Amino acid sequence: MEIQQIIKQNRLGLLFQQGSFGLEKESQRVYANGSVVTTAHPQAFGNRTYHPYIQTDFAESQLELITPPNKKLEDSLRWLSAIHEVVLRTLPEEEYLFPMSMPARLPPEDLIKVAQLENPEDVAYREHLVQSYGKNKQMVSGIHYNFQLDEELVKALFNARHEIKSAVEFQNNLYLKIAKNFLRYQWVLLYLLSASPMVDDDYFRDGVPEDLSPIVRSLRSSQYGYVNDPEVKVSFDSLNDYVESLEHWVNTGKLIAEKEFYSNVRLKGANKARDFLQTGVRYLEFRLFDLNPFEPYGISLNDAKFIHYFILLMAWLEETADQEDVELGKERLFEVALEDPFSVTAYAEEGELLLIALLEMLKEIEAEQTAVQIVQEKLTLFAQPHKTLCANMVNEIIKAGGYQQLGAKLAQQYKAQAFERFYALSAFDNMELSTQALLFDLIQKGIKTEILDENDQFLCLQHGEHIEYVKNGNMTSHDSYISPLIMENKVVTKKVLAKAGFNVPQSLEFTSVEQAVASYPLFENRAVVIKPKSTNYGLGITIFQQGVQDRDDFAKAIEIAFREDKEVMVEDYLKGTEYRFFVLGEETLAVLLRVPANVVGDGERTIAELVAHKNNHPLRGDGSRTPLKRIVLGEIEQLQLKEQGMDILSTPAKGQIVQLRANSNISTGGDSIDMTDEMHPSYKQLAVGIAKAMGAAVCGVDLIIPDLTKPAEPTLQSWGVIEANFNPMMMMHIFPYQGKSRRLTQNVIKMLFPEVL
Amino acid sequence: MEIQQIIKQNRLGLLFQQGSFGLEKESQRVYANGSVVTTAHPQAFGNRTYHPYIQTDFAESQLELITPPNKKLEDSLRWLSAIHEVVLRTLPEEEYLFPMSMPARLPPEDLIKVAQLENPEDVAYREHLVQSYGKNKQMVSGIHYNFQLDEELVKALFNARHEIKSAVEFQNNLYLKIAKNFLRYQWVLLYLLSASPMVDDDYFRDGVPEDLSPIVRSLRSSQYGYVNDPEVKVSFDSLNDYVESLEHWVNTGKLIAEKEFYSNVRLKGANKARDFLQTGVRYLEFRLFDLNPFEPYGISLNDAKFIHYFILLMAWLEETADQEDVELGKERLFEVALEDPFSVTAYAEEGELLLIALLEMLKEIEAEQTAVQIVQEKLTLFAQPHKTLCANMVNEIIKAGGYQQLGAKLAQQYKAQAFERFYALSAFDNMELSTQALLFDLIQKGIKTEILDENDQFLCLQHGEHIEYVKNGNMTSHDSYISPLIMENKVVTKKVLAKAGFNVPQSLEFTSVEQAVASYPLFENRAVVIKPKSTNYGLGITIFQQGVQDRDDFAKAIEIAFREDKEVMVEDYLKGTEYRFFVLGEETLAVLLRVPANVVGDGERTIAELVAHKNNHPLRGDGSRTPLKRIVLGEIEQLQLKEQGMDILSTPAKGQIVQLRANSNISTGGDSIDMTDEMHPSYKQLAVGIAKAMGAAVCGVDLIIPDLTKPAEPTLQSWGVIEANFNPMMMMHIFPYQGKSRRLTQNVIKMLFPEVL
Repeated sequence: MEIQQIIKQNRLGLLFQQGSFGLEKESQRVYANGSVVTTAHPQAFGNRTYHPYIQTDFAESQLELITPPNKKLEDSLRWLSAIHEVVLRTLPEEEYLFPMSMPARLPPEDLIKVAQLENPEDVAYREHLVQSYGKNKQMVSGIHYNFQLDEELVKALFNARHEIKSAVEFQNNLYLKIAKNFLRYQWVLLYLLSASPMVDDDYFRDGVPEDLSPIVRSLRSSQYGYVNDPEVKVSFDSLNDYVESLEHWVNTGKLIAEKEFYSNVRLKGANKARDFLQTGVRYLEFRLFDLNPFEPYGISLNDAKFIHYFILLMAWLEETADQEDVELGKERLFEVALEDPFSVTAYAEEGELLLIALLEMLKEIEAEQTAVQIVQEKLTLFAQPHKTLCANMVNEIIKAGGYQQLGAKLAQQYKAQAFERFYALSAFDNMELSTQALLFDLIQKGIKTEILDENDQFLCLQHGEHIEYVKNGNMTSHDSYISPLIMENKVVTKKVLAKAGFNVPQSLEFTSVEQAVASYPLFENRAVVIKPKSTNYGLGITIFQQGVQDRDDFAKAIEIAFREDKEVMVEDYLKGTEYRFFVLGEETLAVLLRVPANVVGDGERTIAELVAHKNNHPLRGDGSRTPLKRIVLGEIEQLQLKEQGMDILSTPAKGQIVQLRANSNISTGGDSIDMTDEMHPSYKQLAVGIAKAMGAAVCGVDLIIPDLTKPAEPTLQSWGVIEANFNPMMMMHIFPYQGKSRRLTQNVIKMLFPEVL
Repeated sequence: MEIQQIIKQNRLGLLFQQGSFGLEKESQRVYANGSVVTTAHPQAFGNRTYHPYIQTDFAESQLELITPPNKKLEDSLRWLSAIHEVVLRTLPEEEYLFPMSMPARLPPEDLIKVAQLENPEDVAYREHLVQSYGKNKQMVSGIHYNFQLDEELVKALFNARHEIKSAVEFQNNLYLKIAKNFLRYQWVLLYLLSASPMVDDDYFRDGVPEDLSPIVRSLRSSQYGYVNDPEVKVSFDSLNDYVESLEHWVNTGKLIAEKEFYSNVRLKGANKARDFLQTGVRYLEFRLFDLNPFEPYGISLNDAKFIHYFILLMAWLEETADQEDVELGKERLFEVALEDPFSVTAYAEEGELLLIALLEMLKEIEAEQTAVQIVQEKLTLFAQPHKTLCANMVNEIIKAGGYQQLGAKLAQQYKAQAFERFYALSAFDNMELSTQALLFDLIQKGIKTEILDENDQFLCLQHGEHIEYVKNGNMTSHDSYISPLIMENKVVTKKVLAKAGFNVPQSLEFTSVEQAVASYPLFENRAVVIKPKSTNYGLGITIFQQGVQDRDDFAKAIEIAFREDKEVMVEDYLKGTEYRFFVLGEETLAVLLRVPANVVGDGERTIAELVAHKNNHPLRGDGSRTPLKRIVLGEIEQLQLKEQGMDILSTPAKGQIVQLRANSNISTGGDSIDMTDEMHPSYKQLAVGIAKAMGAAVCGVDLIIPDLTKPAEPTLQSWGVIEANFNPMMMMHIFPYQGKSRRLTQNVIKMLFPEVL
């Protein structure tokens, strides 16, 4: 197969480097000391029957975290990060994820429970494994790396070759070549990436094997790991041989099912091996990799890239390993696995030659410079075994005072890290916080999610055949097109609400001072608020709470408002406090009071110091990626202080509330206070009705209410609606400054997928 | 009642001038010669059982056009104009609207059919009227003017008066006062506005009355018009007296129903007079007014305003007419009605005094100057009877050669005017054409429509309890919120369509020349189009139809594209013609081909001349308010000509098509050609599926199709979808340059109100 020529002649080097990547990572749930838990799989992770991200592997304690396939490895790592954050924040307080492949302290065998899956066959299969291998070996964890070549590449390679008639056959041969060469040279990856040098003695129920060194390169990949009976040999010579030998072992009962064949490469894309003959191998699964304990999610991006190029090399190589080579490769793997990690490997020369071939390939396919650097770095490790991951790990184990101790320390560290910005999903921090919160819940509950456009906050959700699209956290198919258009237009909103019988403050709009002042008689003696049409942080607003009594006062207020805008509104003034009602469907899920930026004096600190202190709150930040915003002592704030006879160096008395803004926006440092439980239910019912009148499934309703404890009455004195908002903010309810958190994103999911939650 | 004092003291002058106005205008349908038709009410006007705008009055031939109530008289006149345009454009070709109150040539009595309404009681009532009054009198037409005072005003007046306990009673007394004073002084309005000086002899079946002058002021308001038996006297002394006397005449059989009481003022707001005692009079109907034949819609805005101020004066006057005064007023009305229109009226002095009082009132309530001018002008007419409308009309009748002749001439003129801009609804010409077309259909079919926001094209439609909102002609509740969001995002659109299995050209986006050129290998040998992400009239686009073969060519095309935009797309090139499919629900309603601006040579005229000629097409205009746009011979067009070796003074050969633009937008002078019937149905079905995948009820799908006659196949060679558009343009389908018109606005109504159409 002159694949190198074809790639060079057809300039397919770039396409050769495209592909699709998926990662699966197993981890034991452990207690703070690193010992494996005996608790059930947390219910908070939803249903394992369909969960695409969070599964259990062999044991009930053994999580399997699965990324969706991605075109970029970077994205697979981001998903792995996100799934980890979800898991670590959802685990019971006393539980952690063990960061190493070999379990540290196992419970007695009878307390190790196989995963309690819904399908009885799945449970029976696990029970069979227990019989064949014992429980302990099943408790070992690793990373599986799924890779698919770009379909365009396979097509282009096939088109360039005329001797093979069937595209499927061509594709199968290509993947088979990769698989065989991988099995031949897999020991190289083990040498460079292995990280299971030892294990606690209790792993070996029948006593530590006598000939086992205290430290090795990879216990997991050795004969002491989780491997098939050596008798089970499956041929990779051709796909037909593969299918027939695999079926042979199943038929003779040596394997209970095809999936019990634990090759470090698995052919993927069909349920039964025989199907590959028809439909073709679609991708490969590589199962060799130990967890890297120094990476919070078990693998680094550079190592993942290295593996990718290594796999490509397996296709690039001119020769294809035959069955003998494969068996030789397996033997070397076992051999290298049990070497002393500080020693030079027996096959260093072969390893170096292979990486030199890899560097040549990178040059031919014009790979990016970072790829070359990654490989060059790995190349140096053959001469410097003490710099391998495994050797490092041994050193750290010694420093930490033991295997379990290192694992426990890192497990705690990674869990703490996951809580640092508990309101965010770090890997997707360029998206809005509300979309991050939604993603969190989707991952947690197992709704398959595709990010269609990251900048545009556009998600595609899927459960079975049911697809839903979501933008900006709560813009969905459940709202009708006309609803946001109504809410966008304040005049139309008022007309619609008034028509539906809700209390709406009446208003008139003016485009000139003269025209407005001429209308004074219409407002005389009425309580009105005069404001620029586009209100901007409270500027230009005059309120006549007791009714406007004097034409000159009125004219002056009109003039002030016109300084801020070309259009001015005179609106009925509603006395009371403004509350934001978050309505979803038939229910008001949250009520929030927004209080203008303020500090409370302690009789000692200055306003500047009090602000600095308040700004330390974990929810406050400068940018857009925190639920609350820091208070800025700018012009407007200083003016506000001046009006109260203070400045930023004043020291307010103990308990004195100093208001720093006239407007209550969260974006200018305001406080959010959850009032859901305090609000009289009649107002919550009104808000639901208002959302209905807007035709909205999700709606933020702003009501003015003088007394939230008294039931609503049908007059503007009792309450009035001043705004209805589409795509209402969710973060201020999810992470309020004070009061109970309302996890609205879960309600959005429940609305979209009532069959799931 | 010291109403003047209250208004002055409480500065209610402005509020006094607010109110609500509604107009009803009757018209006979006639043939070109002015003779009344004997045809049935046109079915195109929908169902009279609920039609809010187009009804029949007494006879099947007698249309009654009804405006909705409006806060501004200007708006009532606009509605009247709009309803007229709808009626005139919908009438059978040979039918017109007679512009005068008295019918010109009546069919024999047996051919005059009473209105064939669904409700048998309504028909029976009309048959009774025939028995009592004969058919001819019922054929007289006029204008009814409905007026309601502002409710805030009535409240304010009531609050200022302490001796009356009941608000309803106060309101009833106020409206009763207006009614009585109006009946007392109505002759003044007759003198100033009457327009029924004569009628054809055949109106009088039993011969022309001997004592009748050949010309009078108002036959319609005289004893020869449609009036009750003089014996029927209803008391306006108090509401109680009114109710009891009215019930008396019904009980004694002199009136078949309360509605047979044809007073020039009717109390309105309840079904039965007795209900007024409980619920109150809500507004008044004034029925005095003859059609003004010189106004296309029967009444001028200034006269409508004059009537408004006249009515206000009836409330403003200190005295309230008693029953005797009312009877006196009726006598004077009859008397003045039969005066010679060229003579000074017997009561000129009273008329002048009344208008002087009106001018005083206008001053006191600070009315606008135009109101004063209108009244002053009317005031002069008492001394100049030959300048009254009625006198003018007599002069014009003589000029035209007869009563019928004048009516026929004006009827033809008004119908022709209504067709001048047949694609628009003149009164609402500040709205988009598509909304104008929708309004047209709504008025025609009788869906109650409220314009919520004129600038924002926001309508509220109602039929019975069923309410729908529409923005921009086709944005409705039938589309989901997420659909337009998907379509707004080209990347997401492509992903969604590809996921659903439609042929989508694949594309990659780049933000730098280097990055794009580095990806050259991915595109080598592929037919691609390279374009700025925001395409702008075809600038910066390079197409490699045969596949890009050369890296340098590719790099150059990339550079050209980057001159126009910061982002550049490389997209699969689809060979074929672009068609716009307009999909609504389960159906492709229209298919359009858009052809770039062009002219066809005739071997004689220059390109400039050909363009000038083409621009004369009635559908072409400069602004946004024509379905097609004029071709502008600007820079881009001249460049396009230059590339073809021509300029604007070139004379193309006969039949030679000269393309003036690369892009096919209608907005740059392109032609729209309806291809609905030519398109193979398989593509129409595809477009429906694409709209469905977008979740859209209304969608404009752009497909590239090489051969519209061949059935669609599942490859990009057969067809590809390049865009899906929400709120797709409708006017280009409704008024195409060539081909059949597709009245899409009717389908929108059908979608929203399947119960109606």
